[in-house]
Amino acid sequence: MKTGIITIGNELTSGGIQDTNTALIARQFHLQGWQVAATLSVGDDEAMIKKALDFVLPLTDAVVITGGLGPTADDITTAAVARAFNLPLYTDEVVLNHIKEIFARYGWKWTQNNAKQAVFPQGAQILDNPVGTAAGFSLQVQGKVLAVIPGVPVEVKRMLPEVVLPLFRRSFPEESQYPAVRTLKIFGLGEAAVDQAVAGIDQPGIRIGFYPRFPENHLVLSARDAVEVAAWLRVKKAEEEIHRRLGSYIFAYDEETLEGVVAGLLREQGRTVSVAESCTGGLITDRLTDIPGSSLYLERGLVTYSNRSKTDLLGVTEDILQKHGAVSEETARLMAEGVRKLAGTDLGLATTGIAGPDGGSEAKPVGTVFIALADGAKTFCRKFSYRWDRRRVKIIASQAALLMLKRYLTGEANHE
Amino acid sequence: MKTGIITIGNELTSGGIQDTNTALIARQFHLQGWQVAATLSVGDDEAMIKKALDFVLPLTDAVVITGGLGPTADDITTAAVARAFNLPLYTDEVVLNHIKEIFARYGWKWTQNNAKQAVFPQGAQILDNPVGTAAGFSLQVQGKVLAVIPGVPVEVKRMLPEVVLPLFRRSFPEESQYPAVRTLKIFGLGEAAVDQAVAGIDQPGIRIGFYPRFPENHLVLSARDAVEVAAWLRVKKAEEEIHRRLGSYIFAYDEETLEGVVAGLLREQGRTVSVAESCTGGLITDRLTDIPGSSLYLERGLVTYSNRSKTDLLGVTEDILQKHGAVSEETARLMAEGVRKLAGTDLGLATTGIAGPDGGSEAKPVGTVFIALADGAKTFCRKFSYRWDRRRVKIIASQAALLMLKRYLTGEANHE
Repeated sequence: MKTGIITIGNELTSGGIQDTNTALIARQFHLQGWQVAATLSVGDDEAMIKKALDFVLPLTDAVVITGGLGPTADDITTAAVARAFNLPLYTDEVVLNHIKEIFARYGWKWTQNNAKQAVFPQGAQILDNPVGTAAGFSLQVQGKVLAVIPGVPVEVKRMLPEVVLPLFRRSFPEESQYPAVRTLKIFGLGEAAVDQAVAGIDQPGIRIGFYPRFPENHLVLSARDAVEVAAWLRVKKAEEEIHRRLGSYIFAYDEETLEGVVAGLLREQGRTVSVAESCTGGLITDRLTDIPGSSLYLERGLVTYSNRSKTDLLGVTEDILQKHGAVSEETARLMAEGVRKLAGTDLGLATTGIAGPDGGSEAKPVGTVFIALADGAKTFCRKFSYRWDRRRVKIIASQAALLMLKRYLTGEANHE
Repeated sequence: MKTGIITIGNELTSGGIQDTNTALIARQFHLQGWQVAATLSVGDDEAMIKKALDFVLPLTDAVVITGGLGPTADDITTAAVARAFNLPLYTDEVVLNHIKEIFARYGWKWTQNNAKQAVFPQGAQILDNPVGTAAGFSLQVQGKVLAVIPGVPVEVKRMLPEVVLPLFRRSFPEESQYPAVRTLKIFGLGEAAVDQAVAGIDQPGIRIGFYPRFPENHLVLSARDAVEVAAWLRVKKAEEEIHRRLGSYIFAYDEETLEGVVAGLLREQGRTVSVAESCTGGLITDRLTDIPGSSLYLERGLVTYSNRSKTDLLGVTEDILQKHGAVSEETARLMAEGVRKLAGTDLGLATTGIAGPDGGSEAKPVGTVFIALADGAKTFCRKFSYRWDRRRVKIIASQAALLMLKRYLTGEANHE
């Protein structure tokens, strides 16, 4: 089955906002096994909307259109689509009453232009919008299915899986396979190495998509089958094989984040942590505190940027700083041990490094980072050498530190 | 002048990556005063590339195509474009030698498929690529100009202003106006209020674009004129008027960031700062340390998440915590004063609040944040009430804190 995507709005053709709907929809269609023949954007312009339809319909079986369903004068998608197929417009009283109810419930002032959102082309099937006032609609024209939905990204995110995908499946039952999708999130291996490691798994019946998301690499395994469980079995088998090959580099699945996984482990184990950051500048605690309830396991974080703060708070002696430098294994170890002791937590995590662009030397070039983890009995430390700009050194170092913590908590080896 | 944008690549129609080129190019064209009639994406598929050209060319005067110029087998854009216009292909020896030189210089292994990047349609003008191996090319066909460039976003960012815009200007001299563009970055005023405040400035000859970038609102003033200085004068005049109306809400211009402005002021004034964060969780120091050389003015940051850390490090007494709570004006003030004293800095900045989703009460609902700034003589404190999710409360609170610091350093009033 071939599909097309038309996104409508002057804000898109003027570059005012980034069109995120197209990629979201394309990816979902791709996972269903539906080819996306073309995607295009046009402004809020009736003639261009007609031309876009004339271009896309002959190439496709099903088309989704987003945008231009709002109450304001420049929202003309419904009228333009109706006119393109010579369909008269009518007001749907059920939808109109529903919109009026929403206005009443929230105490919004009713203005007549809102009634526009209850107008549809004759013969349209109304598509309920669970998160906004503008309903969508679908049309059967020239043997094709057209779904028209609002362009607000949160509304697209809901209506696509809940309304559009089921509609297209019903319309083309012979193409109705169920997809099974699993995302494996990988850190610590380069793109080429990941690519090589999964070679040969990409067999008929299973597809492996590779998506770099700095500093992570995501592998998306997908399969399709008329029997849903058969699709999942194929994905499961491929996942096990990849796990066998890359297990220690996989840190999360699907919607999980590294900080979320670490937070879950700390809560489960009833352990507490404190953090002393130099080169990461607070990014580790920022990430840990993005997880609701982080005060249960994060006691404190210190951004010990100056030497004095390392000496005062963490007990990194001036002697050590003089002899080994603020960026050294010795300092990282003392920072982790120092913050753990100061905070009275089970674990202490520390980073020190040179994020650049200045401050590097031949012995310690920009991108040199030491990360240490102390548990009172032992202190682990690893040295990393990154070749990225300042922001990306901070990001990848925060990732490496959180991964070290995660591996400690799961009992995995922390050395490679 | 009407323009079109075609982006090519299976990674786009499969949703594998977000197409950022289209928005970038559309915005630049828009600023030149060139209308973007349509943008579309197709896969690496010769028939679809031809159909895309057939669709776009009749609607436009100039078209830019990105993607599919690499050395691998699926990169077929050059061949597809040549065939669409019945042009034979030839190898350009100058380009070929240039690519070979790059390979030799970096010690890369030469493989024959790289020679593909020196192949062009007969009659093409070669477009130099300052940042990659794949050159672009332009064609004059059916009275239209076509620019074909690589799809790598960093290459598009360079080639667009340096190669494509000058090409289109030369090709359509009668449309060759110079744009003047100025971005004003605003924080602390809602979209509707900004919109109202700039009403009437949007006169013929000056255009005001409105771009919400949470938690900021950006106003982009632009004008065009055959005489560049005339365009700049119009922008300047509008900028002065907006400054008169919204001055205290404008914190930065063009590419500047709030943390960059604060860093510049601290360095200029030779002042130092330390930060005590609770609800922002390290995000303030993360932002401050994104600026190279931040160790000159940031002495330390403390993420005092637990009550104990507030008492131990900052001298927030248990009495205060009991009586007023960790989220209170009293605690915020003591945190700012405490971190300033502990660090021995000129200034101390502090945040405490409820980021949610849990932890709110009737008296202090989720989104309640106190921000304090101490300079040794006085301590300022403000209370904010935000209605956002956890991550956005953190972001907007870090912004409010940095703005308080900026206003202090510039001598602006810190109350509204």
